[in-house]
Amino acid sequence: MRIPKDLIEAFRNEKVFLLTTHIGPDGDAIGSCLALAEALKSLGKAVFVYDRDPVPECYRFMPGCRTFRSSLGRIMTKHPLVVLLDCNSPDRAALTGYAFRKTAVIDHHETESDFGDIRWVERSAAATGLMVFHLVRTLGVQLTKSMATNLYTAIAVDTGTFRYSNTDPDVLKAGAELVEAGARPGAISEHLYEDWKKKRFELLVRALGTLDISDGIAFIHVTRDMHEKTGTTESDTENFANFPRIIDSVKISVLIREVDRGRWKVSMRSKGRVNVAKIAAANGGGGHRNAAGFRITADLATIKKVIRKAGGAVLPDL
Amino acid sequence: MRIPKDLIEAFRNEKVFLLTTHIGPDGDAIGSCLALAEALKSLGKAVFVYDRDPVPECYRFMPGCRTFRSSLGRIMTKHPLVVLLDCNSPDRAALTGYAFRKTAVIDHHETESDFGDIRWVERSAAATGLMVFHLVRTLGVQLTKSMATNLYTAIAVDTGTFRYSNTDPDVLKAGAELVEAGARPGAISEHLYEDWKKKRFELLVRALGTLDISDGIAFIHVTRDMHEKTGTTESDTENFANFPRIIDSVKISVLIREVDRGRWKVSMRSKGRVNVAKIAAANGGGGHRNAAGFRITADLATIKKVIRKAGGAVLPDL
Repeated sequence: MRIPKDLIEAFRNEKVFLLTTHIGPDGDAIGSCLALAEALKSLGKAVFVYDRDPVPECYRFMPGCRTFRSSLGRIMTKHPLVVLLDCNSPDRAALTGYAFRKTAVIDHHETESDFGDIRWVERSAAATGLMVFHLVRTLGVQLTKSMATNLYTAIAVDTGTFRYSNTDPDVLKAGAELVEAGARPGAISEHLYEDWKKKRFELLVRALGTLDISDGIAFIHVTRDMHEKTGTTESDTENFANFPRIIDSVKISVLIREVDRGRWKVSMRSKGRVNVAKIAAANGGGGHRNAAGFRITADLATIKKVIRKAGGAVLPDL
Repeated sequence: MRIPKDLIEAFRNEKVFLLTTHIGPDGDAIGSCLALAEALKSLGKAVFVYDRDPVPECYRFMPGCRTFRSSLGRIMTKHPLVVLLDCNSPDRAALTGYAFRKTAVIDHHETESDFGDIRWVERSAAATGLMVFHLVRTLGVQLTKSMATNLYTAIAVDTGTFRYSNTDPDVLKAGAELVEAGARPGAISEHLYEDWKKKRFELLVRALGTLDISDGIAFIHVTRDMHEKTGTTESDTENFANFPRIIDSVKISVLIREVDRGRWKVSMRSKGRVNVAKIAAANGGGGHRNAAGFRITADLATIKKVIRKAGGAVLPDL
């Protein structure tokens, strides 16, 4: 991993920073911002962290998460260096309409634009948190327990705690150093994976009861009625789409969620090299190779038919 | 980790080895035996691996798993050095009734006896596979891809792929070296966690439907009738006991499985510092702090009452 020299210089020379990330922030986005903010503050900098959307409940254990601001207020009048983390366009960070004095991008996603006066994009990095880990060390900042917890969580979220194929030696070595610096893998995993409300679990059981598999595609669905009966909301279905993946014959796992009468949101997860982003794109949605989705107004049977048809074109990629 | 000198010497000087582990072998047991066997063979030794029970279906991806013998045949007439891995008494390895010329124990469990002419017991090691990793390097053997796959799997199984609190820096560093030597985390995780038959998943959904929580204890159960309706067997319930742990209020998760009319097997899993081994011991069973079990002949309601009562004594430990 080679950190651009002008990025290091900017972090050394600038005095005011706005760190921001994509809307609907996940653990990698949040942990990367918080750890870098703490490192910069330890160097005497003025640092603001911003996200339009709140930190989701499941990430509220992350140290410093309350420092996220949901409005920019007068920050822009201080002419900060604006740093986009885990995303690479101001739209994704809900930062449109501003004039920026100077900007930097630190990201591991495919870039959507050439935005950023300074760009550090590592598409092969498992997590933005891993990039920040190297950056913090290069800045000569000692890792604290809270920085380690944020970076370990960031890496854990984007690698399925070392289960996905992006788990390379660098990821595991960083993990080891972060544990040495005070991150607690057991406690972090409990927060990430064992913090469900009972009603959410009950919704999962109902959803799994709708399992319908054919030709390597598994469907489960959640209706508004199921939400009402369990007292749950949309955010409680987070991660549901992954469960049917545990079945060996399943190549694509699909969660179909009723957003409103007759309007549905489709979340697809795939194993290995199956590209569900193609199915999403064909239906006006988007995402990555292994995780993508789209919205559709139709009945359940029609939605499954549409996905089976598009899936039939994608599965032979294997 | 300090490997006893006489153990290293024995591995250098002996010529014939019998490597064995506990009955009902898991990934740590199997991976430790297979990796050490390969290392010793590369040093020109004659090596036999033995387990009374077959390698479970879910571990059949492990390289060399077919070399396990289920009977000792004439091996004992060759007077091998008998090495117990991941267990520490000949009973646990179904090796009773034999006279041994020389024995060694390599284990991370609490010892049940002082068995073993040479004993290397590291109770703080996350996995026996981690001990074998250090041993193989000390023996000066180059890690091959198959050894790395076996050791990575061993460590993954005993740490929940780096999710449990036993994940320390040594575990993660070993993981990094094993990936460098050819272990593939994504493929191994798919084998470990995404290789279920559909009928097993259907049984899980039925089992989760029986969820019954009170006072921090979650119960799910599997009846013979449920096995019949889904065409599943006992081994299909492996890991079921862990699922209710994802609920935040659950401190002890219990699977109660009907073995025969009115006879049940209880598997308990706990979070954090709750010691379910005490509940098991009070009912004639055994296990570890976070995973233990016992057998009981009673009706379901009575079994739950027994566990709730014993649980009430254990939970205030927190």
